[in-house]
Parts: sequence; structure tokens; C-alpha cells
Amino acid sequence: MKIDGKPYRTIWLEEDGRTVRIIDQTKLPFRFETLALRSLEDAARAIEIMQVRGAPCIGATAAYGVAVALAEDASDEGLEKAVARLGRTRPTAVNLRWALEEMAAAVRNRPRAERVAAAYARAAEICDEDVEICRRIGEHGAKLIEAAARRKGAGKGEGRVNVLTHCNAGWLATVDWGTALAPIYMAHDAGIPVHVWVDETRPRNQGASLTAYELGGHGVPHTIVVDNAGGHLMQHGEVDLCIVGTDRTTRTGDVANKIGTYLKALAAHDNGVPFYVALPHTTIDWRLRDGVREIPIEERAQEEVTRLTGLDEGGALRTVTVTAPGSAAANYAFDVTPARLVTGLVTERGVAEASEEGLLRLYPERRDG
Amino acid sequence: MKIDGKPYRTIWLEEDGRTVRIIDQTKLPFRFETLALRSLEDAARAIEIMQVRGAPCIGATAAYGVAVALAEDASDEGLEKAVARLGRTRPTAVNLRWALEEMAAAVRNRPRAERVAAAYARAAEICDEDVEICRRIGEHGAKLIEAAARRKGAGKGEGRVNVLTHCNAGWLATVDWGTALAPIYMAHDAGIPVHVWVDETRPRNQGASLTAYELGGHGVPHTIVVDNAGGHLMQHGEVDLCIVGTDRTTRTGDVANKIGTYLKALAAHDNGVPFYVALPHTTIDWRLRDGVREIPIEERAQEEVTRLTGLDEGGALRTVTVTAPGSAAANYAFDVTPARLVTGLVTERGVAEASEEGLLRLYPERRDG
Repeated sequence: MKIDGKPYRTIWLEEDGRTVRIIDQTKLPFRFETLALRSLEDAARAIEIMQVRGAPCIGATAAYGVAVALAEDASDEGLEKAVARLGRTRPTAVNLRWALEEMAAAVRNRPRAERVAAAYARAAEICDEDVEICRRIGEHGAKLIEAAARRKGAGKGEGRVNVLTHCNAGWLATVDWGTALAPIYMAHDAGIPVHVWVDETRPRNQGASLTAYELGGHGVPHTIVVDNAGGHLMQHGEVDLCIVGTDRTTRTGDVANKIGTYLKALAAHDNGVPFYVALPHTTIDWRLRDGVREIPIEERAQEEVTRLTGLDEGGALRTVTVTAPGSAAANYAFDVTPARLVTGLVTERGVAEASEEGLLRLYPERRDG
Repeated sequence: MKIDGKPYRTIWLEEDGRTVRIIDQTKLPFRFETLALRSLEDAARAIEIMQVRGAPCIGATAAYGVAVALAEDASDEGLEKAVARLGRTRPTAVNLRWALEEMAAAVRNRPRAERVAAAYARAAEICDEDVEICRRIGEHGAKLIEAAARRKGAGKGEGRVNVLTHCNAGWLATVDWGTALAPIYMAHDAGIPVHVWVDETRPRNQGASLTAYELGGHGVPHTIVVDNAGGHLMQHGEVDLCIVGTDRTTRTGDVANKIGTYLKALAAHDNGVPFYVALPHTTIDWRLRDGVREIPIEERAQEEVTRLTGLDEGGALRTVTVTAPGSAAANYAFDVTPARLVTGLVTERGVAEASEEGLLRLYPERRDG
């Protein structure tokens, strides 16, 4: 997607064919800076301190991290060390482990002289595969936005389709396109007049910072609202559809996503607004049937609630405490939206009904478990 | 209610019988400071710059403002000037105008020599009446908390009743007790083990600042959560009942309150959690029947969304920008919760069903319009 008219991915190879470059996401939304990864340690550190974040983007960085490491040391020990070091960077990201296994499989049985080239080639493939999955999600989802535009009679210069999203499931979390935002970018690029209500997404404000930054950079009209506002907007016909991402989806279509998603799904249901969830198939946990009971919800540090970081009047980043001193806070990171509130699951294979039967129609190979 | 064990009202008369003292609410939750009102200008300014806020507290301050003004100048012109000056301080508060009319009526036909004493007496009455109304709301509401404790088997040292509230409808917004928080204080003082989930209440954070400050000061166990968290808490049985305040309630029981209230009412309904609204009868707008269509919703400055003020590490108050630069924000102050989602309206006369019939059973004098 674009930043100030120039196309970017979150990670790319420089012209020397060796140096990997990323967007330093710790500086967003206040500064746009890129960063070269020239060593295993550079790559590991980028993941660790969240210069890259989002499961697909982490996986891509780990893949290139193995390539960069092999350019330093292509021995078996070098490969082993790289996989071990990168594997320790983040505890839970499934894509990270998958990417490391893919990379090891791609080079392990090759002679040393071929390993570096093979690693760079496989890392590039992993990135391209991620882009392709997101692109397909975007194509399927854009049709939903297009249909909403048609129903509303919104066309060039006349009216607009209002989409509400929560948190950030955009291109910054993947290699390009994103999941929930891919349909929006595709509709916008196709000339459909789309406007996005961006939920702030407390406590970490990924909506107000990353989603707003992405949309602004690509030129998509959008407005930030506090997480409290969505119900009011829907009551007054100001939302035509909702699209969010997901961290884990059960076999039955229950959706775990950033805390507060469930409240928006309730409001959408109460007001007859379609509520879609965009996801690559890798997000589906085929073992689970009851999201509310079975998906564990991470509790995070209370400081994410009590303290906020922003730009002060002098342009310096500063952290302030915004809650009553002495009062404790609780910080639940996700909630679960039951399938009955989800209109459809937008996957790379098409739009499924949020139910076991709906998912199995798209993924028949999962019928037996 | 108490602050560090010492009882307070938001406004009181000093021992000299002339000086009025208030809690300077612009300093909360970070500093507790009181302020003397010795002149008409002191009182007008306190309302204008929101050293006092909350409709009942504003009304009480305006009443004492007239008394202080008459002590300076008890002539007809002095009275007229005081009413005019105080009437200009805030544009929409109904209690403000009501209090000024009450004060004028109490002194207008008296000889000058009696006016000052009569004014102070009437101002004291207005305060006491407000306390009495809130106390009764508290008594009726505390029974609901007590019943929840009984159902749950929560007693001394064993279990707790979890109440969720949104925004600040506490004693700082009234003279004492508050509306939504009065039942909580009364239950707590009666030894019922009550714990409060305090919604942060973006964008102005009245929950995280004022409600948390109040509850902490009085020793009521509480935990701040982001506005996104309530649905998750209710799904997991962590909320026994919700109590909120209201800015305006229709004849049919639709409730306008701080933005986000509707989302919590939806979650309560979806999870079988009782959802109560506490209100003095003065908040009921008997002319309105359809809250979503008829109650106008104030749109406020976007800076309330994009900027936040808190304490920096050096202990100074500082404002930071927390949203992507260049992205606009929309700021709707209230939303409307339809009566169908409200379990009961807790008034000074008892708990009414949220319907025209329910309200008219408590206020039969309103049957004819």
C-alpha cells in the first residue's frame, strides 16, 4: 500500500540482494522511518522490540532473518543458531514458528554454497504467498463493499459507503494489503467511495495510531472515533458494514479479536448492520468449538490502561498517567464474538457463513477433524 | 462521602456563615484542593471554568452564588445582576436556571435587611433537598445490590457483588451521594461486599478519573477497565448488575447518557445482566417519546479525542496527542439506550419499569402530559 503516494511493503529486499529493510513500526504514527536488517541480531531484535508486529509480518521477518543469518554463517550450526535465536523472540506467534520450519526445510539438505540463495528465495516466496492470501481476502471482501455501494446508490462524487473497523488488521500487520483493511484498499483503488470509521481501540490505540496512519497514507477517507461511539453511529444509519480481523477463529465460527469487538458486533446485530470478519485460513483453530469457553484471553499489564504515550507540544514523545492515582486497572486483551453475531467470514477462498458447515464448505479437507 | 476518611460535600458553608467552599474539580484526580467563593465573580467563574460540574452541583453553586452576591449588594439591581451573571455561565444546564429562579423567588419580596439571611437559608435548603433526593435513590438502589448479594451468597469476607458503571454519576456531580453511585456507597456502608468495574469513559475519561477517585476516596473496592472490556466481563459472569446515570430520560423510558452506555446495555441484555439507570425525576423529559429520534446528541471538539492530559513522570500535568497526525476525529458526547434494554429506573420514589406505564405509576401527577 502507499505512503504519501509511494508504494511500500512492510519488509523488502534492497538492490544489493542481501540487505533486508523494514518500516520501524515503533515510530508510527508519529515518524516514518525504515531500518536495515544486516545480521541475525538485527532481525531478532526487530521482532523482539516490535519494530515489526502482526503475526504474518513477524513470520516474514523471521524468514528473512534466517537468510541474513546464513549469509553470515551458512553452516549447520549457523542455521541452528538462527532458528533458535529467532524462535525465542516472541512467545506465542504461530506464524513465527511456521516460517522458521519452512526456512529450515528449504536449506537443510542443500550444500552450503547453495544455502544463502535458497534461503533468500524461500523468504521472498513466503512474503509473496502472504501478499497473495491478503489480496484474495481483499478481492472477496471488496465485493461486499461494492454491493453495499450499489444498494445505497453511492457512486463517483455521490454518497459513500461507511465501514467501521476495530483495531489494526491492515497492511502493517502483514506484508501488504492486510486482512480486514484489504477489502477497503481494493474498493478504494477501484473507485468505490469508501469512508472508514476507525475505532480508537483502547488500551493500545492501534486504531487511532496504526489504522488511521495506514488509511491516511494511502489516501482513504476516514474518521477516528472512540470505542464508545459505534453503537450511536449504527443507530443513526452511519455504518453500512463492519469488517474486523481476528486472532483466532473456532471451527464453529466464533471469533476472538481485540477487546471490544463483541460490543460492536452486538450493536451491528441490533441495528441490522452486516458484521464481517476477515481472516486467512491459518487463523482457524479447527480443534475448538466454543470460543467463549475455550479460547484463553490474555491479561496484560495494567500500565497499558493507566498510562498513554503521545506527542507533547514540543514534538517529543511523552508518557502520562491518565487514571486516578492509587486505582488499579484490569487489562483483558481480547474478547470473543459468538458466531451468531457474525454475518460472514471473509477468507482467501471466499466468504463463508460463520458456522462449522459454512467453513467446511470452503475447507472440505477439514471435514474429518 | 469521604475522602481519606473525612466526610465531604462538593459545596458547603464555612463557619463564618458567609464564605462558601467548594472542591476544585479541575484539579482532580491528581490533586485535592478546595476553593473559597467570596464574591459573585468567584461563584460565576467556578461554574464557568468547571471547578464545579454536574447539573445538581452547578445548581447548588449558583444558589450559593446568589447568596454571596447579595451579601455584597442586597439591592434589586444586585439581585438582578447576580441572576444574569450566573445565568450566563453554562448554556444548557436546566438545574442552573431552576436554582436561580428559586433564589430570586425566595428573596425578591423581602426587605433588603432580610435578603441575605433568606438567600443563605434557601441555598442551604436547595443543597439539602439534592442530598435527600440522592439519598433516596441510594436507598432504593442499594436494595438491588443487596438482593444480588443474597442471590450470590456474597457476605462478609466471602464473595462480592460486581457492579459495572459508566462515566461519573457520583457525589462529585451532585452535592452528596450522587445518583448511580449512591446505591453503591449505601451498600458499601451497610457492609455489603461490593466491587465496582469502572469504565474509563473515553473521550473525557470521567470514569477513570472522577469515579475512580470518588470510590477510592471513600474506600470502595474498584477496578478501572477500558470501555471495550465490559462485554467480555459480562460473558464470563464477572458483572452482577450495571448502574449508570442519565442526562435525559424520555416519558417512555429511553435513556440518554454518556456515549457508550448503549453498548454496555446491549452486552448486559445479551448476558442476562440487570441494567439499571439511576435518576432524579428532574431528569425526565415528559414531552419526549422516542429517545433515539428525538434527543439531540451534542457533537464536541475533536481535540477531546485526539489529545489527552495526564501527569508526566515529573508530576506535571501535560497534554499529548495520541492519534495519527492529520487524521480527523468525530466526538459524539451521548448515546441513547432504548427502554427495552433497561431493567429498571431507580428514582427517589422507587424503582420503575422503563416504560411510560412504569414511570406514571411512580409519577401519577404526569398522567395528563
